[in-house]
Parts: sequence; C-alpha cells; structure tokens
Amino acid sequence: MALVVQKYGGTSVGDVNRIRNVAKRVLDTKNQGHEVVVVVSAMAGETDKLIRLAQQVTPHPDEREMDVLLSTGEQVSIALLSIALKTMGVDSKSYLGFQIKIATDSAFGKARITGIESEKVMNDLKRGRVVVVAGFQGVDDLDNITTLGRGGSDTTAVAIAAALKADSCEIYTDVDGVYTTDPNICSKARKLNKISYDEMLEMASLGSKVLQIRSVEFAKKYDVPIHVRSSFNENPGTIVCKEDKDMERVVVSGVTYNKNEARIEIMRVPDVPGIAAKIFKPIADANIVVDMIVQTSSTEMGCADMAFTVPKTDFAKTLQIVKETIKEFGGKEVKSNEDIAKVSIVGVGMRSHSNVATQMFTALAKEGINIQMISTSEIKISCIIDSKYTELAVRALHDAFELDKPSVTEEQ
Amino acid sequence: MALVVQKYGGTSVGDVNRIRNVAKRVLDTKNQGHEVVVVVSAMAGETDKLIRLAQQVTPHPDEREMDVLLSTGEQVSIALLSIALKTMGVDSKSYLGFQIKIATDSAFGKARITGIESEKVMNDLKRGRVVVVAGFQGVDDLDNITTLGRGGSDTTAVAIAAALKADSCEIYTDVDGVYTTDPNICSKARKLNKISYDEMLEMASLGSKVLQIRSVEFAKKYDVPIHVRSSFNENPGTIVCKEDKDMERVVVSGVTYNKNEARIEIMRVPDVPGIAAKIFKPIADANIVVDMIVQTSSTEMGCADMAFTVPKTDFAKTLQIVKETIKEFGGKEVKSNEDIAKVSIVGVGMRSHSNVATQMFTALAKEGINIQMISTSEIKISCIIDSKYTELAVRALHDAFELDKPSVTEEQ
Repeated sequence: MALVVQKYGGTSVGDVNRIRNVAKRVLDTKNQGHEVVVVVSAMAGETDKLIRLAQQVTPHPDEREMDVLLSTGEQVSIALLSIALKTMGVDSKSYLGFQIKIATDSAFGKARITGIESEKVMNDLKRGRVVVVAGFQGVDDLDNITTLGRGGSDTTAVAIAAALKADSCEIYTDVDGVYTTDPNICSKARKLNKISYDEMLEMASLGSKVLQIRSVEFAKKYDVPIHVRSSFNENPGTIVCKEDKDMERVVVSGVTYNKNEARIEIMRVPDVPGIAAKIFKPIADANIVVDMIVQTSSTEMGCADMAFTVPKTDFAKTLQIVKETIKEFGGKEVKSNEDIAKVSIVGVGMRSHSNVATQMFTALAKEGINIQMISTSEIKISCIIDSKYTELAVRALHDAFELDKPSVTEEQ
Repeated sequence: MALVVQKYGGTSVGDVNRIRNVAKRVLDTKNQGHEVVVVVSAMAGETDKLIRLAQQVTPHPDEREMDVLLSTGEQVSIALLSIALKTMGVDSKSYLGFQIKIATDSAFGKARITGIESEKVMNDLKRGRVVVVAGFQGVDDLDNITTLGRGGSDTTAVAIAAALKADSCEIYTDVDGVYTTDPNICSKARKLNKISYDEMLEMASLGSKVLQIRSVEFAKKYDVPIHVRSSFNENPGTIVCKEDKDMERVVVSGVTYNKNEARIEIMRVPDVPGIAAKIFKPIADANIVVDMIVQTSSTEMGCADMAFTVPKTDFAKTLQIVKETIKEFGGKEVKSNEDIAKVSIVGVGMRSHSNVATQMFTALAKEGINIQMISTSEIKISCIIDSKYTELAVRALHDAFELDKPSVTEEQ
C-alpha cells in the first residue's frame, strides 16, 4: 500500500464527463490498495472567465479581491469531483486551502506555501477516505485567501506530497510527459523517461510549460519525485527526480526555446566599477526581471558594451528607463531588438563533458544562424538568435545531440 | 452617523453594470456619513447554473459537497463588488463565512446561524472601510462550509445587523416592498409602509416571497427592523418591525395565496386517543412537512374524518404512506385532491376584532367559492378552495377588507 498524491489539471477536469473519468482513475488507484489524495485545478477556461469578469469592472482589479475571485474555480472542481466519487461509492471529502491550513505568505497572486497541516488529511486517509484538495490556493496569517500563480496547483500537489511524506506525486496533464523538445516544431522529439530536478528547472524556466517552476523547486527541496503523465491514457510519463550517476552520462537532455524576450544593448558604457548596478537598479525598482546580461569590452578605450534581455511585455518601459539612465553617465547609444529568440540546451551531463558549447555553436553555424548573445550556467547554454530561425535552430540542435535516440540509461 | 447593513439580492448584482450601481449606492450611503456593511447574494442565475452542473454528475449530489459548490456564487459577488468599490476610491474588504466565523449548525443546505464574530468587521468599520460579506454561507464547528437555504442571504444580513447592533438593516430587492397582496393578480394591491414581524412571518410562510422566513424569525428574536426596498429606485419600501398599538387598529394587512399544496382526506378514522400520532408519525419520519390538519367528527359513531395538506412535491409519497398506515386500523377510504389553493388573510388586528372570519367566509360565498378546509391562527385565517378560483378569491378578499385604501395609521 502506498500513499499517492495525484494532481489533475484544467483540461483533465474540463467538463462533467472528464471529471467522471478522473473519478474512475482515482477509484482504480484506490482499488489497487493505495491511499489517494487528489489535487485539482479549475475547469479549463474558468480562471480566464473570472479574470475577464473582473476586467469588465476595471483593468487593474485589487489583488486581494482577485484571489477571492479566482479561488472559486478550484472550489467548484473539488466539489464536483467529490460528488462524482461519492456517486461511485467512494467515500471522499473535499478541502479548501483554509480547511487544511495551506499556509502561505501574503503575496496575493503569487503566494508561496509556508506550511500545511496534515493531520485532518491523515485522519481521513486512515478512515479509507479519498481526500480531494483545491489546488492553487492557500490562506495567509490573517485568513486572507491567497493564490499561488498560474500552474500553482502543481505546487499544491508537491507541497502536500512533501507534508504527507507521500510515496509518489503524479501530475496528470494533457501531454504524455516531458519531451526532449517541443513536439509541435520538431517531429523527432522524444519523451524522456527520467529528468533531474535541476534540468527540469532549467527546462521550465526556459519555456517548457509542463510544470510550474515553483513546484519543481519545492520537489527538489523536499526530494519528492514527480511523475508527469497524461490523464487521457495509461502510458508511463516522465519521472522528475534527484540526479543519479546514470543521468550524467547523458550530455544534453533537452532543447528549449523562448520567443517572449527582447534585447537591449547599451553601447560604449564607461568601464568603471558600479556601472552595472547603476544601469540595473532602476529597472529592478520597476519590478522588471532581467534575464540574460552580457558585458563585452569595447574597442574604444575604457568603455564596454552592455547587452541584456527582458520580457517583451516590459520592453518599452525598460527602454525608456535605460534612456534616462544613460544620460547621467553619457552612454552614447542604445540599440534594441524585439525579433529575437532564445534557444537553449539543458543537461546535467554538461558538468563532466567538455566541448558541448562548441558542438552547439557549430550546429547553429552550419545552418547559417548568427548568435547575438551567449549565456551559460552549469547545466545549460543559451543563445540569442534572430527569431525567424527558432524552429530551424531547435531541430538542428535536436539532431546534433542525437536527442531522438534513447540514451544509454534509458536503453537499459 | 449610523451603522447600516445593506443586502443586495441576485438581480441587484446580476451583471457587472448592476454591481457598479450597487457600489454607487453604497458610496452614497458612505458619503452621507454612515458606516456600511454590505451583504450580497450570488449573481442572478449562478446558483441554478451550479445546481445544474452538479446534477449532470448525479441527481442526488452529496449535501456537504453541494454547499462547497454553491457557496462559490456569493464568493464571486463579494470579490467583484469589493473590486468595484475600490475602483471608486472606497476602501473596502470582502469576507467569506469562515473569515468572520459565521458559525452555523451542520445541517448542510439549510444550516442555522448560531453566532458571528463581529470584531474583525468592527475594526474595519472603525478604519473607515466598507465591509462586504458573502451571504448564504457559514461554517460549522469543524470548518465545513454550510449554506442557509434559498434566500439565506437575507438571514445573513439580519444576523450581522443583530451581531453589530446596527441601526438599520436594508434588504434591497427587485420589488418596491411588501404589498397587501400579489400585484400580478390584483391590480389594486398596495405597498405597505409598515408590517409587524408576526404578520410578515405569516405572509412569508403563506407564499409571499419577499423575505426568507428565517430572516424574519431572526429579526423578531433580536428586534432588528428590516427595511425592504428596491435597488432600482429611491422609493421608501416597507419597514418590518415590532408590533405597535397603531398596527392593531388595522384588522387585515394582507391577502396571500399558495398553490403548491395538495390535500389528503382519510374517511372514518376510529375516533380513539393516539390515532393522529399513528397517522402522522410515518409521514414525519419521511421528512414530509404537513401544513393544515383538520379533524371532524364523522356522522358514523366513534369515527372521524381527518384531512390535511402537504407540499405537492411530496403528494404521491404521502398518499402511499397513508394507504399503508390505514390498513392497520381499518380506515376505509382515502380521498385526495391536487387542484387546491390556500387563500389567507393576515393581520395582528384580528386579535382584538371579532367577526373577521365571518367577513372572509361571506366574501368567498358571494363569489360562489366553496371552502374545503379552514385553519386559523391568532393573526391569520386560511381557507382551502378549488385552485381555479384563486385569483378571484384574492381580489374578493382584497376588496372586502378594503386593502386598497391606506389604513388609519398610514394616513397620519
């Protein structure tokens, strides 16, 4: 007998029939002798509908009240799923964030979970009940309702699995698992059997939308293995887990891309200490998240060029801020480009394999793709290229690292 | 400066524009220097939509989970209203049942309020905030969400007014107030300026749908005057309050009717002690509420006829139960009739005026309407008649007691 946490996303509970299917899956797991806690999202489209309703009132609704509004979506789902389970003869009970004290900080719209009282849930499980928990929501110290941000139900599931010391945490979604790259642009994309937390974090933050990034951080912190799989078939999915030795033998696990950034370059910045802080402080003050930063020494004496990327939605604002800033120290010129894409390769094996960067640059060069910026971490390399080459670049890299072939580990 | 509780029903918050109008009304009240607590219902149609959703899963959904589901309707309303208020520059804060501990028993779907923690609300009011409270919902001892039954938001408003010792409790609805009878069937129907709790209770339980009956009981218990008025105009409505001497001078305040009952008559029941209990116990055990009961001595020696009414929805079930019961003591015959209506006159003045019953019977006789059953209380007389005469009877009684003319009290 195992304790299993299962999370079903919005498409999996998108209508009453699908909710019934989820109930059947839960019943099957129960019949296999397991204890089951189910975490559900709002029915597909509901959250967007609620946002539209609020925006009919005002384009900038109050954040506390938005969380009161949005948390109703999951509340509807847990009630309907619990009703469906009871109709099938499964004793079940639904819980909202406040009822099992999913404690969070007070950052409305993007709250972080700080604790969960597991006692009620454990008692229900002992009595043979299936426990159905509303994803995405919690309460702060003052009993205000909070939400965890888009995809927050993943984090709820992982946090509950951690609190209950569950044997497994299954995230059901509308794809079969984590792929080597986006199957929509590369037909050779292959489902991975296993991926490490760190790789998944890089994949998630680089644009792969399978899991909310915070849920992976949480899983890593408490070492909760996540099984990402489809709710529409019985295929095994991808296990996101702690890195093992076998994983290091695989140099590159995946290729990702992101078209939502824009690039700003400040030419001939005085190359003196403190200059970077001067440039980026006003940007940070405006709550704009800078992604890549590259500084190069310029040909002119005592000067450097400074390039960085920001989300496209913050591009205009950032450009305005930068133009103000450079007046101060006489930066001469600002260049910018919105038509860029970031392509990246990710893999824990990079740590122990040299030459990976060269292989990447060669693969792109072969296709005549110019690299505008490069940024690296221990387990990833990212290149900024012209956005029109995105798909070409992804396919070229997928081929170059032979990601279509099962890795040594997976063949075993 | 007064502390005002305002309750807005489903049609008053039926869409975003109407929610804005409610916000404006609240702002006006605030600008007049008052402290305001607003209680809102679910947007018109929302509760029915949620019920339909559950019934797609099963015709008999679990009661606890139904309350989880249905309480989302009011949650959406409070969030949107609070967002609208903030947009107008009014500092406001929304509260769900659990956040201000609207404590109830655990009777899901028809819970009774047992207490409210007023501290949080009072603190907010002191800070100049408008407090927006979700109607219809509460929590039991175990933090389960409960709902108060149809129209339960009225009760929430009155309970909050009682807990806060509010100066007034205004119930905004889509009608102008309480009428002498249904204006849809009697064009001479007149809005009452004032009505006593007891009269309102009789009116409400007899079929007038302006206020939930429990809210009136609550108001009577804690002596909270209710002002029933329209949210679509500025007209004064009807005050429901403690009886005063003036009220007794009015003999009849209103005429009501109810077409939702059916009549069952058991002929020649042995006239011995305990027989009534034998007949009605199995009916009560089936959770069927019997309304009127009339027992007449029969022409046959030692026998009586027993007639009573039940809601039409329980008619078939009751008939079946009764047929089983009478086998035991040899009741000979059961008659039944679904085509009946109950017409009633209500007025606290009846206590001190004789002859009211005779006036009623005469008025009905004049129109050739036969009376099948009669039942009386201190302040009301009800007659069961053939349902096809309902409208005729209501108009005849309205005329007979001259309800179209302002009463002595109201003329002053």
